Amino acid sequence: MYKQEIKVMDCTVRDGGLMNKWQFSDNFVRGVYNACVEAGIDYMEIGYLSSEKAFDRSVYGPWKFCLQKDLERIVGKNETNLKLSAMADIGRIELDDIPMAADSALDMIRVACYVHQVDKAVALAHHCMDKGYEVCINLMAVSTVNEHELDEALKDIAASRVKTFYAVDSYGSMYVESIQHLVRKYINALPGKEIGIHAHNNMQMAMSNTYTAIMEGCTMLDATLMGLGRGAGNCPIEILIAFLKNPKYRLLPLLQVIQDYVHPMQSQIDWGYHIPYLISGALNAHPRRSLEWMDSDKKNDFVTFMKEMHDNEILE
Amino acid sequence: MYKQEIKVMDCTVRDGGLMNKWQFSDNFVRGVYNACVEAGIDYMEIGYLSSEKAFDRSVYGPWKFCLQKDLERIVGKNETNLKLSAMADIGRIELDDIPMAADSALDMIRVACYVHQVDKAVALAHHCMDKGYEVCINLMAVSTVNEHELDEALKDIAASRVKTFYAVDSYGSMYVESIQHLVRKYINALPGKEIGIHAHNNMQMAMSNTYTAIMEGCTMLDATLMGLGRGAGNCPIEILIAFLKNPKYRLLPLLQVIQDYVHPMQSQIDWGYHIPYLISGALNAHPRRSLEWMDSDKKNDFVTFMKEMHDNEILE
Repeated sequence: MYKQEIKVMDCTVRDGGLMNKWQFSDNFVRGVYNACVEAGIDYMEIGYLSSEKAFDRSVYGPWKFCLQKDLERIVGKNETNLKLSAMADIGRIELDDIPMAADSALDMIRVACYVHQVDKAVALAHHCMDKGYEVCINLMAVSTVNEHELDEALKDIAASRVKTFYAVDSYGSMYVESIQHLVRKYINALPGKEIGIHAHNNMQMAMSNTYTAIMEGCTMLDATLMGLGRGAGNCPIEILIAFLKNPKYRLLPLLQVIQDYVHPMQSQIDWGYHIPYLISGALNAHPRRSLEWMDSDKKNDFVTFMKEMHDNEILE
Repeated sequence: MYKQEIKVMDCTVRDGGLMNKWQFSDNFVRGVYNACVEAGIDYMEIGYLSSEKAFDRSVYGPWKFCLQKDLERIVGKNETNLKLSAMADIGRIELDDIPMAADSALDMIRVACYVHQVDKAVALAHHCMDKGYEVCINLMAVSTVNEHELDEALKDIAASRVKTFYAVDSYGSMYVESIQHLVRKYINALPGKEIGIHAHNNMQMAMSNTYTAIMEGCTMLDATLMGLGRGAGNCPIEILIAFLKNPKYRLLPLLQVIQDYVHPMQSQIDWGYHIPYLISGALNAHPRRSLEWMDSDKKNDFVTFMKEMHDNEILE
């Protein structure tokens, strides 16, 4: 399945950091970086750009902030073909905290927003473009957005200078047909722009939804090593690369870093398919409650969680 | 997604038993049975019909044989709407060992065969029908069968009295398009017959492939609790039931038995997505070597396994 225009973005550190407040060892992050370089991955999202006023550095690790000194410690001048990305949430970064691209190891900034923040996201994206970065906008939690609001948001994106826009299944609640519908809608509304896919695995559909998105014309593909990411995690990059069979990618360096760093992390972080995540995904609910449940001593009481979620959903 | 004709078959004990030689406690099997009854599941495959001459009873548990006395201990007279099934492998059961359906708690016998055994499978299936059973034929490892051989096999099935025929992704090596192609082929070749799907999860495609099969017209759906099954396991029945939203099914009894019996089994049986299973699936190879690897002290040396498998595949 060879499509020359496909680009793969590893989000292991950025999305996985949601599970450990980005408290990864330098060896872990360097291992992921080196593996991505050797495997021919196109982009690595190494963390978030956040204001130190918004988050406490004694609680959050360096990849919540992605300061240049931390980046340099891992990637030096990054004289490789791997591009580096960081995500910025609306309202959690101040414009003056974003360095010029020429002074940063970052190549891309991805602006994450909810549907009511699209105008702010476009403004931030334009600001980043003016500083020399590639940009994307990732519209989160789209499974809860009504069609009319989404159409309005797409008009704003279409009118912007932003070249790449992401279909994001934040809640892991989408199946083949909902992905097809969404990607077709994005492609029709955004002629000339590139569409990306970011999937979550609550219903074990992350790889399949990425596959569907490719078939529908998505060319920017998010994935993480062993699916490491929030809650049920993401599309596993090793499955994606094995599927793509694209000569520019190599599977073995990914298996090596999984073996050395990611698989052992399972003893510290309990990401992946678990029943509470299935329940929140199937109910199209934010994973917040399932994450709290998994952090509690009731984590294996699936029946009570289902009943509580069901009652909450009906009341909401 | 309501299709009245859909029937779900729980294969937890039968396929899961491949991982522990069917050494399940009676409480486990009874728990699965009761949950299937309460959840409105249509069929439960409780094990294999095998000759005691072919397998040692001191090694293999009762569900390798499914004797009437063992069945009765769990299900009594099974005065429920749940039908019971057992699988029979060609060459591992003698005709005289199969009781009349009227004398058995079993309602269905599913004949599993490879493509060169289709004639024998039809003969065994007809024998079982004449004894009063419902039957299916499950053609295994179809991902390795060439198109011409498959066409010949389908002619034999079409000419038989067998009403149900299964698409079986034994190696977990199929993606959306291969499932679509296969199911369309089966439906076209077998007018008036029912088509089933049995998926494996090596590439985290089992739920998705089951979904695709439904969309293409499959109506008999195999699944297991938490995907418990050989190697990477099967389509998780709790995800399937959550997706189907069919009023005849209930999710909560399934979550209860998962909580009480299946999830705790994870400390004894290491089924589910693991890198060695991904590798064998992606290479369209029998899971034998990946199962051996997972049973060895090298189980987490993914790189060596990949290299060995790759060398083997090239040499074969």
